[in-house]
Amino acid sequence: MTISMYKASAPIFVQFLTSLSAVLDKAAAHAEAKKVDPSVLLNTRLCPDMLPLVRQVRMATDHAANACGRLAGAELPNFSNNEATIPELKDRIAKTIDFIKGLKAAQIDGTEAKEIKITFPSGATRDFVGQGFLLNHCLPNFYFHTTTAYDILRQCGVDVGKRDFMGTPVTL
Amino acid sequence: MTISMYKASAPIFVQFLTSLSAVLDKAAAHAEAKKVDPSVLLNTRLCPDMLPLVRQVRMATDHAANACGRLAGAELPNFSNNEATIPELKDRIAKTIDFIKGLKAAQIDGTEAKEIKITFPSGATRDFVGQGFLLNHCLPNFYFHTTTAYDILRQCGVDVGKRDFMGTPVTL
Repeated sequence: MTISMYKASAPIFVQFLTSLSAVLDKAAAHAEAKKVDPSVLLNTRLCPDMLPLVRQVRMATDHAANACGRLAGAELPNFSNNEATIPELKDRIAKTIDFIKGLKAAQIDGTEAKEIKITFPSGATRDFVGQGFLLNHCLPNFYFHTTTAYDILRQCGVDVGKRDFMGTPVTL
Repeated sequence: MTISMYKASAPIFVQFLTSLSAVLDKAAAHAEAKKVDPSVLLNTRLCPDMLPLVRQVRMATDHAANACGRLAGAELPNFSNNEATIPELKDRIAKTIDFIKGLKAAQIDGTEAKEIKITFPSGATRDFVGQGFLLNHCLPNFYFHTTTAYDILRQCGVDVGKRDFMGTPVTL
């Protein structure tokens, strides 16, 4: 057993995307029980200048897909970016998981020094190498958005706990 | 350049503990400017059954110290666990950073299969191996608590942005 770029990425993203999808199931159940429109939850923010839940979920899938896809040199999945319901978000998560599972360990292992240029929505670019891209950029951002999605739902009163966030480790 | 247990742990924890400490500086400045007792911020929770900021910060340092210390087989730092001010929390963070920096890469590298038994506060125990302990337990928990600390302060109106959360990668 040796840590590798693949083991530090693909199974981790799949674990926490799977738990995020299950947390959204609990959000849907909460909305139904409380007779709340699920879109109210999806548009909830922790403060006015933070992204709402729907965007936190999209960002989490983006960071996971970008990490694995860029490291592997694979074409990234295309999403509509207008998902506005819990089932649509869960579909996006499922497609991201399928995309990651479709990549082979050999495509991601050994990419520590791979040069990766990222163009941000602002137009700014940043040059990474694979290891820094994964450890210092993608994983922290991914956890930031999955945690904030969870935090928003906790604040909305959805019955989720730390175990729902953590999910179950997967072997790929 | 090859990913290793050390590279996936020590410099990452130091980066995000450093940024957490700087975020607390902004919290202190905010409290002073708004004439708010800093303890109000430290006792803010996102919901009644989540931990307040002060505990989120303590938990973040615990996961970082436990990860590196357990992998390295080093004696863990002892804290009073009654830190109740921003300077006291910043001191705890600084001591955690010093502890991590005091460990050598050779103590942490190669610990992928090391057996680690954790006894939780509840008394329950869980057996890990090093790689799963770091990737599936310590890092996600660490990011969970650093993100939630940040989220609490955003909700309190503290002027922090994503860059404050991300900090700057460090080389150890």
